[in-house]
Amino acid sequence: MTRDQLTTPEQVRRACRSGEWTGQTSGLAPKFAQANLVVLPQEDAFDFLLFCQRNPKPCPLLEVTEPGSPIPLRLAPDADLRTDLPRYRVWRNGEMTDEPTSITTCWRDDLVSFLIGCSFTFEAALLDAGLPIRHIELQRNVPMFRTNIPCVRAGRFHGPLVVSMRPLRAADAIRAVEVTSQFPEVHGAPIHIGLPHQIGISDLQSPDFGDPVPVADDELPVFWACGVTPQAAVIAAQPEYVITHSPGCMFVTDMPDSGLRG
Amino acid sequence: MTRDQLTTPEQVRRACRSGEWTGQTSGLAPKFAQANLVVLPQEDAFDFLLFCQRNPKPCPLLEVTEPGSPIPLRLAPDADLRTDLPRYRVWRNGEMTDEPTSITTCWRDDLVSFLIGCSFTFEAALLDAGLPIRHIELQRNVPMFRTNIPCVRAGRFHGPLVVSMRPLRAADAIRAVEVTSQFPEVHGAPIHIGLPHQIGISDLQSPDFGDPVPVADDELPVFWACGVTPQAAVIAAQPEYVITHSPGCMFVTDMPDSGLRG
Repeated sequence: MTRDQLTTPEQVRRACRSGEWTGQTSGLAPKFAQANLVVLPQEDAFDFLLFCQRNPKPCPLLEVTEPGSPIPLRLAPDADLRTDLPRYRVWRNGEMTDEPTSITTCWRDDLVSFLIGCSFTFEAALLDAGLPIRHIELQRNVPMFRTNIPCVRAGRFHGPLVVSMRPLRAADAIRAVEVTSQFPEVHGAPIHIGLPHQIGISDLQSPDFGDPVPVADDELPVFWACGVTPQAAVIAAQPEYVITHSPGCMFVTDMPDSGLRG
Repeated sequence: MTRDQLTTPEQVRRACRSGEWTGQTSGLAPKFAQANLVVLPQEDAFDFLLFCQRNPKPCPLLEVTEPGSPIPLRLAPDADLRTDLPRYRVWRNGEMTDEPTSITTCWRDDLVSFLIGCSFTFEAALLDAGLPIRHIELQRNVPMFRTNIPCVRAGRFHGPLVVSMRPLRAADAIRAVEVTSQFPEVHGAPIHIGLPHQIGISDLQSPDFGDPVPVADDELPVFWACGVTPQAAVIAAQPEYVITHSPGCMFVTDMPDSGLRG
């Protein structure tokens, strides 16, 4: 199975379901939104839902399933979240215990699935607007940093805001604010521009996650809230049981990127 | 105590707390956002939070408190939700059992408070834009209607979308869409314009809540999602215990209306 055969959301999900595709989803089914996945027992679901409500920029909720149901009725009513992602991570008491390609055997009737917006959508809009995205040009993962900005706590869930960084020239940075402002469901406008030390970032070449990218003298680093924030907060809270997507192995939805325009 | 003495949020809340003000809050503390209140036991709070997440236009959540805490840290950290509204309604198993001016004696450690955006904020913006608001001109309550549009269910909470209606001439209706689009946290853009029967409204002169207002031949009825929607869904679900604000007796926040601009 090659990437060229995975141009619709249904093709991607079917290939994941059959085990034919177990890799990253970036670039698959272009023009359709992809989502981060966090699955928690109902006992922890209220606090996590509250964490997302209180921290909407890093945690833009696209959908929350009914307890026990793996069907995302809004984003892809024909999908099954237990099988339709390429790869998952299973965590018990804060330790990753498995990285399976299906979670059918570890599903429980009390599990609630949270689907959270992903920056792939606004990156497509930035590219459409003619703006350069350094890490895509260099075929790297986007650099991500823990900031000194705390998220608003909800019950056991707390932690720092994690941001992604894209270097842009000033006029492009302004245009990028305009473009991403239109996508509040996928992190929206940047949270900072230009002065990384003000948000607790001392070295742009040492990201906490992802790969470093060069920042030219005539460029500003532009920082967006990142979906790693809720994942990190969940894992740090060490709940009894959590399932997440494996990094880069997102859920591909039936929602066109344009459907997430605010 | 007269309305002229209640020009800041703190003055309003202090007068409510002391029992000196027990009336409606419309027009008090101008330029500050007011909020609908729903208080539920934690046992029902997850489903209601999910109901709001799934129905953001009628249920724009401004804040959800920690279980047991009556302090709205985001909207007014010095306030106490048990005393700082003019009047409350206490419901047990779907029946209103009391309409007190304080809920201190009926507070419980498992109660979660939901503060939901209110159309007063966007009405102020419409007036600032020079648009006429019929029910304000006539000193009536806004007319509200149950529609045939179902909300997305969450657990025990479900029911029809309730809308408020304001008649406007076509050019003003267009401008009203532009203005209210900027306020997603207080219901945002209208949900319908012009053809009430398409959303299940047969007679504009017979609102389900509030007062009728005349609609001229050269005007279109413009419909916005309304905060009565979540109140009606909660009461219809007949949970064991619910507290709401009394109609028109909202919580006055420290958040300027302009702070809710998207």
